[in-house]
Amino acid sequence: MGHRRDRTGQADRLVVLGARRGGRGPGRVWLVGAGPGDPELLTIKALKALEAAEVVVHDGLVSDEILALAPASARRISVAKRKSRHSYSQDEINRMLTAFALEGLEVVRLKGGDPFIFGRGGEELEACREAGVECLIVPGVTAALAAGASAGAPLTHRGSAQAVTFVTGHAAKGGEPNLDWDSLARPNQTVVIYMGLSMAAPIAARLLAAGRDGATPALLVENASRPDERRIVTTLAGLPDAAAALSGPALLIVGEAMALAQAGEGRADVETLIREARA
Amino acid sequence: MGHRRDRTGQADRLVVLGARRGGRGPGRVWLVGAGPGDPELLTIKALKALEAAEVVVHDGLVSDEILALAPASARRISVAKRKSRHSYSQDEINRMLTAFALEGLEVVRLKGGDPFIFGRGGEELEACREAGVECLIVPGVTAALAAGASAGAPLTHRGSAQAVTFVTGHAAKGGEPNLDWDSLARPNQTVVIYMGLSMAAPIAARLLAAGRDGATPALLVENASRPDERRIVTTLAGLPDAAAALSGPALLIVGEAMALAQAGEGRADVETLIREARA
Repeated sequence: MGHRRDRTGQADRLVVLGARRGGRGPGRVWLVGAGPGDPELLTIKALKALEAAEVVVHDGLVSDEILALAPASARRISVAKRKSRHSYSQDEINRMLTAFALEGLEVVRLKGGDPFIFGRGGEELEACREAGVECLIVPGVTAALAAGASAGAPLTHRGSAQAVTFVTGHAAKGGEPNLDWDSLARPNQTVVIYMGLSMAAPIAARLLAAGRDGATPALLVENASRPDERRIVTTLAGLPDAAAALSGPALLIVGEAMALAQAGEGRADVETLIREARA
Repeated sequence: MGHRRDRTGQADRLVVLGARRGGRGPGRVWLVGAGPGDPELLTIKALKALEAAEVVVHDGLVSDEILALAPASARRISVAKRKSRHSYSQDEINRMLTAFALEGLEVVRLKGGDPFIFGRGGEELEACREAGVECLIVPGVTAALAAGASAGAPLTHRGSAQAVTFVTGHAAKGGEPNLDWDSLARPNQTVVIYMGLSMAAPIAARLLAAGRDGATPALLVENASRPDERRIVTTLAGLPDAAAALSGPALLIVGEAMALAQAGEGRADVETLIREARA
């Protein structure tokens, strides 16, 4: 089993699989990005992994539409991390994943967005490596990309956004996030704050105090790519008021390129769009 | 046509489509992210858009496998931006896209990765808005996410990567990129440099001069997610030598969390993996 210990990633796996050909060996953990919510924003690879799953361990944010893509026989386990609900600790999730795989099951750990952008996928990967469990990773469309697409606002843009930074507004011990405000306050870059809705006021205050212009365009996107998506276009100074109007999972995006963003609601299904365009 | 002028994004489009129902009106431009290269990392939405395309205007980096997913009848136009090849200027591409759409065609502008991460999608979107052409955006898996997945290295990680920043190593007028080196040199964050291979030596020198530790782990990924993918694990100090060993499109990733990265080559097809696991 020693040679399995450091096997991960999308590549380099055929040798390991060769060892399983003779019979049913240990299972594997697939860390799969489910994308931002719209089932059409799943990758084909994620869909295939889901269709092959024997156990699906999923976050609360993964929609029923997406969960329905796993076989009916697959066991589904919600490890929802929403406040005020029963949820599992990260350590319990890690033990669950490795234990199922060591029992010989194909385990899909399904996460909103991308597993390696604020998804704690790195911790689950480390747990697999420590347990000698093979871990395969399927990247996904992270919410920031869907939010930019929905609003028609590029995250990088010639002349006004030479860089884009993803940070989290969620602090490990609650309270205000401890971020590098001086760096984030520099102009001509896009800052995307995940899980920052409840911290919008202190985040805006910190950015302003560090020197970012209050007139810098800002975009808030709730439920990006879902039918109940809502987008508000404002400025850095207006961020706290705008945030107070939203309640669901949301991204805050601050940056000059957000001048291109468009407010709006709802999501149109691409199949409907195409069918109607052809009619 | 006035009400079409500012229509973009994934949402809010049914009103516009309603206006087309009575007959064939003007076409549209779809800015579609093709993902990092592996056709299985296309989203289902991108695949559907491609299948409905009448014209496909694509970058040189989009693979033949992906282009084959468009209808045989669709016109394919390469606007390759590789050095030493004929290529179109951004202005020419913008005029091409809007002209085709105004002729009534469904135009898919297919870009590697995500259209809004160093894809100049924002400029094409602006051109569409100016021309009164509807522009729909399909996000994609940007190369950084695929590189992290392949290497088993999380871009954000509890304790060692509280933020991730995407920058480009390609300067508008050639020469060294003009980046915010002080910000990028802070510890406990991941810096992803797109199109930086030829600038690896000056980039590493600037980061070191700004105070980033030379022992910071670094990962180089060439052709992320493609069959000819190659990954090198090194340190910031070792970046220039490692870069000299690669030649294709590559990402440079610097950050403490790259300590989890694994070197390797090649990509395994997920269908093969699943079939073999079941055998």
